[in-house]
Amino acid sequence: MAKVLPKRSEDYSLWYNELVKKADLAENSAVRGCMIIKPYGFSIWEKMQRELDDMFKETGHQNAYFPLFIPKSYLSKEADHVEGFAKECAVVTHYRLKNDENGKGIVVDPDAKLEEELIVRPTSETIIWNTYRNWVQSYRDLPLLINQWANVVRWEMRTRLFLRTAEFLWQEGHTAHATKQEAIEETERMINIYADFAEEFMALPVIKGLKSESERFAGALETYCIEGLMQDGKALQAGTSHFLGQNFAKAFDVKFATKEGKQEFVWGTSWGVSTRLMGALVMAHSDDEGLVLPPRLAPIQVVIVPIYKTDEEQQKITEVAENLRKSLKKKRITVKFDDRDTHKPGFKFAEWELKGVPLRIAIGPRDLDNGTVELARRDTKEKQTVSIEGIESVIEDTLEIIQENIYNKAKNFRTENTYKVDTYEDFKSQLEKTGGFISAHWDGTAETEDKIKEETKATIRCIPLDAPEEGGKCIYSGKPSNKRVLFAKAY
Amino acid sequence: MAKVLPKRSEDYSLWYNELVKKADLAENSAVRGCMIIKPYGFSIWEKMQRELDDMFKETGHQNAYFPLFIPKSYLSKEADHVEGFAKECAVVTHYRLKNDENGKGIVVDPDAKLEEELIVRPTSETIIWNTYRNWVQSYRDLPLLINQWANVVRWEMRTRLFLRTAEFLWQEGHTAHATKQEAIEETERMINIYADFAEEFMALPVIKGLKSESERFAGALETYCIEGLMQDGKALQAGTSHFLGQNFAKAFDVKFATKEGKQEFVWGTSWGVSTRLMGALVMAHSDDEGLVLPPRLAPIQVVIVPIYKTDEEQQKITEVAENLRKSLKKKRITVKFDDRDTHKPGFKFAEWELKGVPLRIAIGPRDLDNGTVELARRDTKEKQTVSIEGIESVIEDTLEIIQENIYNKAKNFRTENTYKVDTYEDFKSQLEKTGGFISAHWDGTAETEDKIKEETKATIRCIPLDAPEEGGKCIYSGKPSNKRVLFAKAY
Repeated sequence: MAKVLPKRSEDYSLWYNELVKKADLAENSAVRGCMIIKPYGFSIWEKMQRELDDMFKETGHQNAYFPLFIPKSYLSKEADHVEGFAKECAVVTHYRLKNDENGKGIVVDPDAKLEEELIVRPTSETIIWNTYRNWVQSYRDLPLLINQWANVVRWEMRTRLFLRTAEFLWQEGHTAHATKQEAIEETERMINIYADFAEEFMALPVIKGLKSESERFAGALETYCIEGLMQDGKALQAGTSHFLGQNFAKAFDVKFATKEGKQEFVWGTSWGVSTRLMGALVMAHSDDEGLVLPPRLAPIQVVIVPIYKTDEEQQKITEVAENLRKSLKKKRITVKFDDRDTHKPGFKFAEWELKGVPLRIAIGPRDLDNGTVELARRDTKEKQTVSIEGIESVIEDTLEIIQENIYNKAKNFRTENTYKVDTYEDFKSQLEKTGGFISAHWDGTAETEDKIKEETKATIRCIPLDAPEEGGKCIYSGKPSNKRVLFAKAY
Repeated sequence: MAKVLPKRSEDYSLWYNELVKKADLAENSAVRGCMIIKPYGFSIWEKMQRELDDMFKETGHQNAYFPLFIPKSYLSKEADHVEGFAKECAVVTHYRLKNDENGKGIVVDPDAKLEEELIVRPTSETIIWNTYRNWVQSYRDLPLLINQWANVVRWEMRTRLFLRTAEFLWQEGHTAHATKQEAIEETERMINIYADFAEEFMALPVIKGLKSESERFAGALETYCIEGLMQDGKALQAGTSHFLGQNFAKAFDVKFATKEGKQEFVWGTSWGVSTRLMGALVMAHSDDEGLVLPPRLAPIQVVIVPIYKTDEEQQKITEVAENLRKSLKKKRITVKFDDRDTHKPGFKFAEWELKGVPLRIAIGPRDLDNGTVELARRDTKEKQTVSIEGIESVIEDTLEIIQENIYNKAKNFRTENTYKVDTYEDFKSQLEKTGGFISAHWDGTAETEDKIKEETKATIRCIPLDAPEEGGKCIYSGKPSNKRVLFAKAY
């Protein structure tokens, strides 16, 4: 397998697209902006789903399923919400096709026009809050802690595999609470879960923060986010958790009787992560040879490649490999024994490198004699010869070390690419020179934010939750500020 | 909790609908024909998904994801296929809403009309085979064994929760093979997996068979199905597996190079089960008090209800219950300790009965003294007092017994409600009197099948795979037949 990828340093964007396709993660479909997630890519997404789903359930959430379609009128009930989504809605207007009378094939049947158009859900707050009205009568019915795994559609004009697609897969949590305090706690709980997931499983260090008003979810009072830094110095929003206040409760008249018998509006949250995480995973760690997958999300954690010339060698190596595969399986390590006789070892090495398998074991005739194997790490490309005796725990430990190393590497990269600046000149030159996160003072106005975005393409990624109080002046307006915020160009 | 359900004997259809809603499985949404699957119902579906997914993966299948939308022209490429689905398609014609200039709120933006309409997938053969064209070049690329879990939309006019809804959840397997033989084997493998799942997990005995030509999937050469019998004597198709021949390969030009270097069309299969299985589960086993769930699919397998008068009693019982919950959890038994102090034990008993929890444990003050609990089976309503010492294995065994008993009960019901008839008079009177499966000779023509359907509403459910060769005469036409087929009225 020849080198198939462009270099990151030459064309990062092309490198990403080629890698996603060549590593069999996803490809574009015949439908504009909609992707096909291929089996190898989907198996990574399944691992993400399983881990997240467990975390949601451990914190008391249950899954449910709400309709794909939303009546047009529902969308309009929350003013900011419709404003945010109306421009990118797929609209169902008819419910039947028919044979054209003039022989032009199959056409939309004009007699089958819907009385009210249906929107393919871009997000489900409206249909869910319309349902919650019937589910909530008293404080005893609260909290409602519900999540759904679903597809959603937002008609994006410029799409990129995983990062921005017209249809994508996600989970959306929608919770309802008796008090403001509880809802805020839930919003924070979920952004913390997302951050833990990103760091522990994706090996992606993230900054937790609040969005500025203009970057908030349409209909939310506050949006919490996690932001990661990609290898090209651009930021990527990896998950959001919204405190909705009573906005949707008021729009859909969701009230409850308090213990004291008063009628009050319910407090809400919503939170989601999507297949965008796949894009973050690829961009954060991979290299010019291909994917670098953290072991906890790798569909194949260890690949065994046999190297032989004679049938006898092949037979002996197969026996050793099969035994190893079985003993690793007992330790719940996912192993692939690549015994294809249609490809040479070098081809296989390159292929599994491209696909990001964390550990490669090669077994040759000399290994047979010595009772060893060659162990190669994908992340550092280090190779070592290891005794096959007791190799299971070596592999177990090495997978842990790889997981940690990938995280540390990404964290060091972020540290090295986070800059404090105090003037607009420095801001612009830093952005131009290195990209990365730029920590700077901002006067808190949407006007300044817009100007900076217009002039530099950088946006406020977040106001970090752990940002210390610090007096300063806005880099743009010079007005006073008491906290630095994080700017970056972003995906 | 008062008795809330109509009796099955009085109005089976109403009983079903009320049960689905009152047991918190699902409800109708504001969108015509689309249901909301509630958390309790969804947790049963999740268990089904997990088991099926494991079975698919054990037989070499991988999951992937294909677009929700299908270009209208794709649907037309396979002639039978478009004929089968065109009349019930949700059609996306626009991709944007806008504010109406005359202040009429939000309207569809006429400037955002799609060049080609998109169909919300009713099934994915067309979009998937269009993709397979690029995935298959040589015999080495085969077989492709792919499954997807997805939502689909078929615009049904008369809908019923789970059984027939405009949107439903399902899995659809789509495989591609080098030979006809392999594809037929795959088709049969999957109908066998569905049958095993239905019998082992849903406790639903099913007949495996072939559909007659007129009941075949639109585009298939042969449709295999599993058919279950519901308590009202109507049949329910619970899963289908289609041998597609080379139909979709030809429609989408999917060819491969054989070992000998010849270009040949690929052979295909597709197979699916849906949330319809939820309806089958409810209808097959439940009674006038509520759901009867087989333990292997019950979200809660054991519920513990404390019975106390004093705080001291409550405290002691809670301690016993918590210990029991923990020791059962270690055996991977799902237990709910219903310690709500807002409801009386009788209310709780009725609620968990309604929700079909297989085993109920009640602990009262006398039990504390005697070191016992009361164990009540949902399926037989038998109660017994059991020593708490060693109760874990009693519970484990009883859950197995319940699973088996539910299956046997359904199987006996089916045996008792399967009738052999040899004349059309007997056929009609049996159908009228008892319903059930009617085994009869048929001349093999669509004409006869249509007539019988028209006159009696009974359809050929299947030609059982294990039907013995047997000479006979068609009950309708008197023409010769060599095999009995199964008729029934059906959902």
